[in-house]
Amino acid sequence: MTGNALGREIPDRIGSRKAIPFGGAFAKTPTGTKAPRPQKAAAQHEDKVLPTIEAAIEACGLSNGMTISFHHSFREGDRVINLVLDACARMGLKDLRICPTALFGVHEPIVGHIESGVVSRIEGSMNGPVGAFISKGGKLSEPAVLRSHGGRWRAIEAGAMEIDVAFIAAPQADPYGNATGIRGKTPCGPISFQAVDAQYARKTVVVTNDLAPYPVFPMEIQQGWTDYVVVVDEIGDPASIASGTLQLTNSPTNLLIARLTVEAVKASGYFKDGFSFQGGAGGMSLAATKFLGDEMEKAKIVGSFGMGGGTKMLVDMLRRGQIRAILDGQAFDLDAIASLREDPAHLMMDPGLYANYDSRGCSTYKLDAAFLGATEVDLDFNVNVNTHSDGQLLHGIGGHQDVAAGAAMTMITLPALRGRIPPIVERVTTVTTPGEVIDVIVTERGIAVNPRRGDLLERFRAAGLPVRELADIKRDADRYIQPVRRPVFGDEVIAAIEWRDGTVIDVVRKVEEWQ
Amino acid sequence: MTGNALGREIPDRIGSRKAIPFGGAFAKTPTGTKAPRPQKAAAQHEDKVLPTIEAAIEACGLSNGMTISFHHSFREGDRVINLVLDACARMGLKDLRICPTALFGVHEPIVGHIESGVVSRIEGSMNGPVGAFISKGGKLSEPAVLRSHGGRWRAIEAGAMEIDVAFIAAPQADPYGNATGIRGKTPCGPISFQAVDAQYARKTVVVTNDLAPYPVFPMEIQQGWTDYVVVVDEIGDPASIASGTLQLTNSPTNLLIARLTVEAVKASGYFKDGFSFQGGAGGMSLAATKFLGDEMEKAKIVGSFGMGGGTKMLVDMLRRGQIRAILDGQAFDLDAIASLREDPAHLMMDPGLYANYDSRGCSTYKLDAAFLGATEVDLDFNVNVNTHSDGQLLHGIGGHQDVAAGAAMTMITLPALRGRIPPIVERVTTVTTPGEVIDVIVTERGIAVNPRRGDLLERFRAAGLPVRELADIKRDADRYIQPVRRPVFGDEVIAAIEWRDGTVIDVVRKVEEWQ
Repeated sequence: MTGNALGREIPDRIGSRKAIPFGGAFAKTPTGTKAPRPQKAAAQHEDKVLPTIEAAIEACGLSNGMTISFHHSFREGDRVINLVLDACARMGLKDLRICPTALFGVHEPIVGHIESGVVSRIEGSMNGPVGAFISKGGKLSEPAVLRSHGGRWRAIEAGAMEIDVAFIAAPQADPYGNATGIRGKTPCGPISFQAVDAQYARKTVVVTNDLAPYPVFPMEIQQGWTDYVVVVDEIGDPASIASGTLQLTNSPTNLLIARLTVEAVKASGYFKDGFSFQGGAGGMSLAATKFLGDEMEKAKIVGSFGMGGGTKMLVDMLRRGQIRAILDGQAFDLDAIASLREDPAHLMMDPGLYANYDSRGCSTYKLDAAFLGATEVDLDFNVNVNTHSDGQLLHGIGGHQDVAAGAAMTMITLPALRGRIPPIVERVTTVTTPGEVIDVIVTERGIAVNPRRGDLLERFRAAGLPVRELADIKRDADRYIQPVRRPVFGDEVIAAIEWRDGTVIDVVRKVEEWQ
Repeated sequence: MTGNALGREIPDRIGSRKAIPFGGAFAKTPTGTKAPRPQKAAAQHEDKVLPTIEAAIEACGLSNGMTISFHHSFREGDRVINLVLDACARMGLKDLRICPTALFGVHEPIVGHIESGVVSRIEGSMNGPVGAFISKGGKLSEPAVLRSHGGRWRAIEAGAMEIDVAFIAAPQADPYGNATGIRGKTPCGPISFQAVDAQYARKTVVVTNDLAPYPVFPMEIQQGWTDYVVVVDEIGDPASIASGTLQLTNSPTNLLIARLTVEAVKASGYFKDGFSFQGGAGGMSLAATKFLGDEMEKAKIVGSFGMGGGTKMLVDMLRRGQIRAILDGQAFDLDAIASLREDPAHLMMDPGLYANYDSRGCSTYKLDAAFLGATEVDLDFNVNVNTHSDGQLLHGIGGHQDVAAGAAMTMITLPALRGRIPPIVERVTTVTTPGEVIDVIVTERGIAVNPRRGDLLERFRAAGLPVRELADIKRDADRYIQPVRRPVFGDEVIAAIEWRDGTVIDVVRKVEEWQ
């Protein structure tokens, strides 16, 4: 057990691996080489199409104890993870490690697969029931490992997460294994999250519901990486993507926070031609993006790029000429997908380009401003997005660490009160992102600036913004809180939170009981 | 010295490396792993722009005996290779190995750099004066190594050609090192030939004459790979790309060959919906592509893809809906470049996707028909594109091996007589591509079919095509030849011709004298 740079107690080992304690957001220098990718061979005029998931599992030689991976682009609509795990269960496979980019509520059947021993380890983000389940302790044979989007890409390239078989849900694929997420019967947006899996996995299987003639394009997944193609009836529910119009927040509190956020951007010194920002798909983030667009129009500012999760909001800004490009890692609506098909300035961005720490530079490093959420922040500006105040592991990291580390000004937008629960605490339950890369916290009760950013503080004050100490805002909010259920943690580490460079920034322990 | 599968004498070593004799077009099975790529690190908000080539050479730590690489997309208009080598010479560097994708007449100054000891080794194709110079023998410290487009990509991934510094001519780049060849002041077409260099080289330098705001796109070369960016006045002469309208051949012989080629395609059984083909930019190939388009229109056939060298001819077919996609490795005119910018169905294709032997499948394997040239063919259907009958090494391999190995029907188009020189010989001076992957030879004096392809022979006969034995065509042509200057070769191996899998298919020896 060692204290890391944030004073969090990190065990010497996480499961079978030595843990390297977090030493600072940019403390680690990558050296040496990436892991080598497997050579693959092709017979000429080979047919890669197999009739069933089972046939692919067999052809890949998947056996007990091996590792399989998935992407999350269908989010709550995904069918493929359950499909593959059900097939594994039917075939009597045990002790599998699964490495999804993220799990959602729809993946609750994994709980059953854990109980029956089909799945024994998880490396990947968990949103919802699977995280809640493993929070009880004693469920997995090793702690889960959670990584950011960039961190996951890095880990595979560094050889820290070896994959036996990558199963890739593909809205359109050709029989030679080229595949895309932005065409087909049920487009889900770019599937390049798994481009690194496809190159590194021992075997790569594309699972599609739309087998189209060669060549399918664009090729997020390439023929040279794909071993087999399987056609199934359904890979995902398009309704999870095409959920219709985006919902701006209509909460007065959140609208106020979005408005303050944009005022802070305007005062920050970054708001000028060439300005770049990351907007998300949450209601508050969408509202901020909308207000930002209005302000850019008023000020006649042309931004360099907006980064997403692609949304109609970003697409509209691109079409109106308010930004020169969109860098898009995943699509949050059908307008973004259509734009990706048609507009060369709407660029697909894989998580390596987006956020890889082990590279000569990633796109998040070019961000001026980013608006991010949190479940908790603390007085050191540390951010928790993984656990709730009740201690349960309920959310993944997403790009939070990557964007926060990269953006010149990282802004956390959060209400000082959520119902009667205080999001501003003495010490966050879990550190996802360290305070050293958080610049501003915007609440409905004022804007707190990290003491490291005296420059911003001055600018905000000069602009007459409601700047306050974070401790003041906390005190203010604390007057309204009720006693909340606080967790009592056991010793068992149920998950490690990796910082994007592969070090361990925090661990999540078993929830023993609630006080 | 060992005879390879074609009976060519191959030395045990090529320079400092063990030579593996060619064993057959698909004899080798790739196993194990690719070479690992170097880890790279980034400081946040780092500026990668350096003021001069010299500053970049210094920053990269380039020293005597090291290896540097280049691409050839500007062909005869390239400025960057001479620029960099002149700088190396001024800085007193010696004994460099250069690994260009190809050299042209414009690179004749390299002869001086070889004589002064700045350059001592070459791995890459040589078109013209540098090849002629080294053909004299005694010029390089090790034999040159020539590889196909796919073979070069493979060699770098396999660790067989390690690069210290990749210098990448980029028509447009941003200060963070994203670069493209299809935008900017002097576009040259895709620069993805060096995408593999950029990922594997110890250091990567982008050399541009158009530094544009972040993010430059598309990103054939990515920020995560680029160490430095240098801005210079000129990187290449756009006239070498924008050479105006394409010239179809106007030689009656060549028009006849083009016509016969298309008749053979029509009779082959491959000419139906989904048909795919490779067209080149030579006058005869352009004529064949034109005639093919006419026939597809008449027959109402929609092809799956045309592969290039992108040309206006292919772009017109795409626009008219005669093909569904273009797979484009390099652009041969400005129409192709404009189409690459605008049409998502005009796909950039790097040489790995195009032609990598060590992969789960490349695009050339999906070709139905290909029209390729030759300097010589022999009675075993072996093809020479590297040396002339006088023995001099005057041409590179290009994609010849890759396409011939891949296409279901590979057709060599060549006149039975070139002036008074016979291109059909008993035994080619140098084997570039083995007869086992050549299906048809089309001449103005008849069509010869490889005996392995009895199926095609029958179809051609049934269609009334002028099918003849290759030996007959040769006898016919031989009546008109005059005694030609035949080379007397010395012992010194001046170059090795690699087959696309990394084995040695032939060597080129010093030309001692001519008889």
